Amino acid sequence: MNIPFKKMHGAGNDFVVIKLEELPEGISLSDFAAKSCHRHFGIGADGILVVAPSEVADTKMIYYNSDGSLANMCGNGIRCFAKFVHDEGIVKQDQFSVETLAGVLLLEVKGGDCGVEAVKVNMGHMIFEPSQIPVATTKDRFIKEALEIDGEYFEVSTVLMGVPHTVIFSQQLNIEYIKKYGPMIEKHHLFPKKTNVNFAKIIDRGHIQVKTWERGAGYTLACGTGVTSVCGIAHHLDYVDGDVTVDADGGRLRITITRNDEIFMEGPATDICRGIFFMK
Amino acid sequence: MNIPFKKMHGAGNDFVVIKLEELPEGISLSDFAAKSCHRHFGIGADGILVVAPSEVADTKMIYYNSDGSLANMCGNGIRCFAKFVHDEGIVKQDQFSVETLAGVLLLEVKGGDCGVEAVKVNMGHMIFEPSQIPVATTKDRFIKEALEIDGEYFEVSTVLMGVPHTVIFSQQLNIEYIKKYGPMIEKHHLFPKKTNVNFAKIIDRGHIQVKTWERGAGYTLACGTGVTSVCGIAHHLDYVDGDVTVDADGGRLRITITRNDEIFMEGPATDICRGIFFMK
Repeated sequence: MNIPFKKMHGAGNDFVVIKLEELPEGISLSDFAAKSCHRHFGIGADGILVVAPSEVADTKMIYYNSDGSLANMCGNGIRCFAKFVHDEGIVKQDQFSVETLAGVLLLEVKGGDCGVEAVKVNMGHMIFEPSQIPVATTKDRFIKEALEIDGEYFEVSTVLMGVPHTVIFSQQLNIEYIKKYGPMIEKHHLFPKKTNVNFAKIIDRGHIQVKTWERGAGYTLACGTGVTSVCGIAHHLDYVDGDVTVDADGGRLRITITRNDEIFMEGPATDICRGIFFMK
Repeated sequence: MNIPFKKMHGAGNDFVVIKLEELPEGISLSDFAAKSCHRHFGIGADGILVVAPSEVADTKMIYYNSDGSLANMCGNGIRCFAKFVHDEGIVKQDQFSVETLAGVLLLEVKGGDCGVEAVKVNMGHMIFEPSQIPVATTKDRFIKEALEIDGEYFEVSTVLMGVPHTVIFSQQLNIEYIKKYGPMIEKHHLFPKKTNVNFAKIIDRGHIQVKTWERGAGYTLACGTGVTSVCGIAHHLDYVDGDVTVDADGGRLRITITRNDEIFMEGPATDICRGIFFMK
């Protein structure tokens, strides 16, 4: 079966993008995701972005991880999705709405003659309510809480930003340290649905460096919802002002936070290749 | 710059395949390899196969690793190369010759209406001469030699099969064990140009299971020259007969050895996708 695709990345987080109408009948999205995302037997990507019709927004994004599991949202993914639908002429206007499993998001694309170069996404508000994140605590929010793992002490803050995100502010972002403690925090019994884990270093009130351990995926080059959560919590704790440049290993994002705590994420979206996938 | 490509795999070893004539002027193959093979910013592959004209054979294969380094030969790669040049009509006959940096190799393609499905390659003879492999020893060959690494004892045999290959026969092929000792043997001072390391389990006289630690690349799903070396040495030591089925993690290969010790490798070659790479 021959399926047209584009491969794109947002700050190093890479995706296979297809139109739902071009997927042959009888192929499940889960199966397509697992096969097309395989790094050696497939095209290779972190997940798939599927363009589908929406009844409540200008278009709809369906997102599957590379293991074939459905996910609510992907911060870097939605920027690639926005560039794709705008470059392909599926959506004509520069500001539009996208339906996701995490709700309808509002986006703005920016670019020139060669198509969209950057996308700004209204990520909405962080959710602090522990039962919604979820976090197994009796407190009314889970911010700056002490956590002991294997003899190491952490100060953690956890919110819901589409998916659960735990943030640890630290002066050093050692990759071996993150690979050791990331999975232990991810699967800690405090987090019934596990958690993404972000290690963040405050450079100054307008600049943060972040490395993320993704739930179910491990260390990744950049995580859009993770970067958003880091800045949201840093702003909540008055570590930063409302306009923050964030360096992830895969690229640079910009987060702005309004007076009413609404968070906007802006960052790049890049085409890698386009072609035909020979699915077997 | 837009560059036409096909992505293929041979037993899980994956490649970006291009025609030299379609590479825009001013782009080096090394730069193209590093950019197109990057798993997140590029198409993603273990290496590139470049179809070039030859003055001594029917066609010429140029091979670069994903890190941008030139390599002599790639056993799984040459099968994909053979399918590509035959399916594209660059070579018309089923038996043809390919120039590589490891010499001119003779190949035979097999398949049906949908193109080549399997390729048989005359891999020539193993080279035992330590100075050619190279192995730092005064012996005239390096077969069944004792090697102590970090308190663990190994019986190793090393040959040149295009590239240096060390073989260790073992009853258990534990992946953590291979990831621990593979790199230590690879970089041992006995091997001035390092060595690939193959762990092999003899199932019976016609069946071997292999896991390979590749020099500079780490654990891979399959290594064609590695599988060939394992069978060549197993046959030399009379562990197997002249027709051996080999299971690597990425697929199954067949090795046949003639009475005069010439070795043939046969295995699959598969298209994954084709398209245009937007090189930046």
